[in-house]
Amino acid sequence: MKTENTVWHEQNITKEQRSAQKNQKPCLLWYTGLSGSGKSTVANAVDALLFERGCHSYLLDGDNVRHGLNGDLGFSDEDRIENIRRISQVAKLFVDSGLIVSTAFISPFATDRAMASEMLEQGEFMEVYIDTPISVCEQRDPKGLYKKARAGEIKDFTGIDSTYDVPTSPAIHVKTDEKSIKECAEQIVQHLIDNQFIQ
Amino acid sequence: MKTENTVWHEQNITKEQRSAQKNQKPCLLWYTGLSGSGKSTVANAVDALLFERGCHSYLLDGDNVRHGLNGDLGFSDEDRIENIRRISQVAKLFVDSGLIVSTAFISPFATDRAMASEMLEQGEFMEVYIDTPISVCEQRDPKGLYKKARAGEIKDFTGIDSTYDVPTSPAIHVKTDEKSIKECAEQIVQHLIDNQFIQ
Repeated sequence: MKTENTVWHEQNITKEQRSAQKNQKPCLLWYTGLSGSGKSTVANAVDALLFERGCHSYLLDGDNVRHGLNGDLGFSDEDRIENIRRISQVAKLFVDSGLIVSTAFISPFATDRAMASEMLEQGEFMEVYIDTPISVCEQRDPKGLYKKARAGEIKDFTGIDSTYDVPTSPAIHVKTDEKSIKECAEQIVQHLIDNQFIQ
Repeated sequence: MKTENTVWHEQNITKEQRSAQKNQKPCLLWYTGLSGSGKSTVANAVDALLFERGCHSYLLDGDNVRHGLNGDLGFSDEDRIENIRRISQVAKLFVDSGLIVSTAFISPFATDRAMASEMLEQGEFMEVYIDTPISVCEQRDPKGLYKKARAGEIKDFTGIDSTYDVPTSPAIHVKTDEKSIKECAEQIVQHLIDNQFIQ
């Protein structure tokens, strides 16, 4: 650069500044639950409520991550862990940008969710357990996956022949069989208000 | 979910809605240039100017990507391509969230930058060439890397024993040896105004 008369102070806009600009405290809502439990549906409904309130949010789910960033990953144990690691790292970047970010993936293993939690700063990670009985998920079966798993056409299917570690102390426990989608979404938004992430 | 009287229309907030909320058109400023050319410095200065104008932006650079998302990657050809692929995919997610996102990496190969460009939608990708003579970069040598490269302690160093493909038609060509950092940043912000990405 040409010689400058005054020293240029490199000015990095901080997470705090970006958050203040957006009038919110950024965080990560980590949705977990069985296939068909309604994770993406509820997360989208929360996003819509946040948008209506003027909040700045974003949702990472199968639709925008599976064929993009994580399109090179399969279903081995190693790839499963790498999948969660990348999602967590990207979520961390979004939190750093000042947004309220949600991730909606089955994420069946408690160790994986703990890994995600540890990447974020204290208080930024919230586990949201979308608690829907497997009988309801299986009856719903929007993508026909339970049927295929029961027929043995899909192996290691969560809840059938692979474990789902039920969250022992989720930040938000959403019992979907007792509520409408709107009520589920409102419960989550209320939690954000109560904990002063949003106004 | 419990039976609802009205059909729930799944409501996905779109990129257009998120952009309108932020009063800007999201895009990717892809900074490219030699080591020590001032990519991160200029990108941070642009971010600060955007912030002052009330725009919503974010910067991906070595500081927040190298040890996080791409911490598992080395310097092989394969890893170099994967590095650029992931950065591009994450940038695409940020653009989808409505932000003006910048990436500041040497990205020496035209093919890699073309790959990044192709992942974005038409008009969203802008190549920003931070054009600083290698003699100036080498004199500056903030991390002592040129010295090590000249001594043969670092192999495949861009500009010394590895190619830098000079951008042939960058969207923004910033000649840093003729300007102050502030003037460089203002040139880029003016481009965003002229092309109606921001007001």
